[in-house]
Amino acid sequence: MARIAVVAGDGIGPEVVAEARKVLDAVLPGVRATEYDLGAARWHRTGEVLPDSVLAELAGHDAILLGAVGDPSVPPGVLERGLLLKLRFAFDQYVNLRPSRLWPGVPGPLASVKPGEVDLVVVREGTEGLYAGAGGTLHRDTPAEVATEESLNTRHGVERVVRDAFARATRRERRKVTLVHKTNVLTHAGSLWSRTFEAVAAEHPDVATEYQHVDAAAMFLVTQPQRYDVVVTDNLFGDILTDIAAAVTGGIGLAASGCINPEGTYPSMFEPVHGSAPDIAGQGVADPVAAVLSAALLLDQLGHADAAARVTAAVAHELANRVPGVPLRTAEVGDRLASHAAG
Amino acid sequence: MARIAVVAGDGIGPEVVAEARKVLDAVLPGVRATEYDLGAARWHRTGEVLPDSVLAELAGHDAILLGAVGDPSVPPGVLERGLLLKLRFAFDQYVNLRPSRLWPGVPGPLASVKPGEVDLVVVREGTEGLYAGAGGTLHRDTPAEVATEESLNTRHGVERVVRDAFARATRRERRKVTLVHKTNVLTHAGSLWSRTFEAVAAEHPDVATEYQHVDAAAMFLVTQPQRYDVVVTDNLFGDILTDIAAAVTGGIGLAASGCINPEGTYPSMFEPVHGSAPDIAGQGVADPVAAVLSAALLLDQLGHADAAARVTAAVAHELANRVPGVPLRTAEVGDRLASHAAG
Ligand SMILES: CC(C)[C@H](C(=O)O)[C@@H](O)C(=O)O
Ligand SMILES: CC(C)[C@H](C(=O)O)[C@@H](O)C(=O)O
Repeated sequence: MARIAVVAGDGIGPEVVAEARKVLDAVLPGVRATEYDLGAARWHRTGEVLPDSVLAELAGHDAILLGAVGDPSVPPGVLERGLLLKLRFAFDQYVNLRPSRLWPGVPGPLASVKPGEVDLVVVREGTEGLYAGAGGTLHRDTPAEVATEESLNTRHGVERVVRDAFARATRRERRKVTLVHKTNVLTHAGSLWSRTFEAVAAEHPDVATEYQHVDAAAMFLVTQPQRYDVVVTDNLFGDILTDIAAAVTGGIGLAASGCINPEGTYPSMFEPVHGSAPDIAGQGVADPVAAVLSAALLLDQLGHADAAARVTAAVAHELANRVPGVPLRTAEVGDRLASHAAG
Repeated sequence: MARIAVVAGDGIGPEVVAEARKVLDAVLPGVRATEYDLGAARWHRTGEVLPDSVLAELAGHDAILLGAVGDPSVPPGVLERGLLLKLRFAFDQYVNLRPSRLWPGVPGPLASVKPGEVDLVVVREGTEGLYAGAGGTLHRDTPAEVATEESLNTRHGVERVVRDAFARATRRERRKVTLVHKTNVLTHAGSLWSRTFEAVAAEHPDVATEYQHVDAAAMFLVTQPQRYDVVVTDNLFGDILTDIAAAVTGGIGLAASGCINPEGTYPSMFEPVHGSAPDIAGQGVADPVAAVLSAALLLDQLGHADAAARVTAAVAHELANRVPGVPLRTAEVGDRLASHAAG
């Protein structure tokens, strides 16, 4: 039986996670879920972000389902570095998987793109780059202040995520991988990424490849998102590009993500891309679809591909039948998805 | 009389620069232009990118008008680092100015945004950050390879560009500045940018301010570009965001930029955001509007605000009267713009 750690978190986190759990229970009866109280509320109450004992407990689960953590009242970085990134790094979740589809029924912002035409997945590196926390400050608060941030990239780290991207591409219809970087400016990291990409590509003659600079990719995601199949890129570029991909496919209310440790040495973590949205928290109006799709990624990762497919089909049905202008209720959406997915 | 150095460059560079010069001559008779042969062609012919003697000559001009440099046949970084970035850094062009307007008559990709609604300017830092070239590689081509890129940020460098952004905002109608960074992950550089931004903001109580993470800004540029007035951000974020801003306002065919040394210690440089587009070079079909708008920024910088306004008005007229589906001819567009701007 799957043991899931649930970190509902702050703001709308608990609301959307409740619906994701409804759906999980409907398709995989007997899931054992343990709740962990982490996030802004706990930090305010206790000053703790992620005690080592909790980290150790989390490590004993098959997967983590996370709602959203964060609140404007917490200084920037405290929860991001101390909790979210801490988990991604401690559990070596090097594949940050972010699929984007323009679902039929969803009004996208682009005039020329029709529902069903966009179906891409960004494989964002999750454990290196500028997220390593390798920065410093000298002469703070003086005119001589200097602040640095260092992007750290290893052959080890780049190769494993590039391999993952190619493996995913071979399981998809179009079999295409786009590498995104900024090789013309970041010549050291760019060269490492390019050479590694080319080496892995040579082992996959059946996969089409292309390279784009990050600025060009940001533009093409707006003008021609249909062109992408699998995109592989570094941690920071992936952060930015996945928000653009979400924007052109109906918004982050629908965007799911998985922070995956493919080997299963550590638990993988699944979370909607949206944040805690304190402005609408507690009103029961948040869209749980991103959390539910994240649960589908969780099911897939744990080997329950059939259950995952049923959840995805339920979401497709839900979105295709939404009536524009009718406000949604979080719990009602969850009920419909659970009953549809249960079949 | 203004002394302009012209670097037409590669691909469509010479074609679009020719039209920008037509327009310049029309509104400011007597401009003294000197052509410099730099770019991929020269590198292939001589192995030289930017000889010191040429750099010294360029320094003696009032401004530089650049078409586009680059070609797929040149290894990544050679011309970017050796020419374009070399000029930006050597001439301390710390304000990389990139206005974006959705001109009436231009079909944008966004269904919900109407022409005239978007009018923003990104003030991108031009001399620091990840563009400093502070990277390294160890154990190249071995499994132990590590590659780094360092973002260098100084109070000096951040403050001057933030001040420029506020100064620009006070001259605009909405008087709003948005700082974009990633303070929750890049905590050192993010803190320097935030603290500096707040200090300068305190001196400008008449300017509204907001902060956004770069991923959120990338999303909002797609879903709600109308919300922005002046955006100030670092070198790399500015690179990415300005391509998104260009995409949502009709494409980089229309996007102008100025690499500005506000003090005038060194010449400022004006260039279309688009590249050399080798696929359409030599056919006379490239849109010269981005180059012409860059020339308008040049005129403005040299104190010829009236001439700049006439060029901008000519572009507005041209774009409002374009008939969809009718292919454009570079030289004809330039002729129309020159005659309209001459009045
Ligand atoms: C909250 C933040 C640390 C995080 C990131 O930058 O990865 C978020 O933006 C995301 O994309 O999951
Ligand atoms: C060509 C490249 C070095 C340049 C940059 O990254 O600044 C370009 O993308 C730009 O935006 O002007």
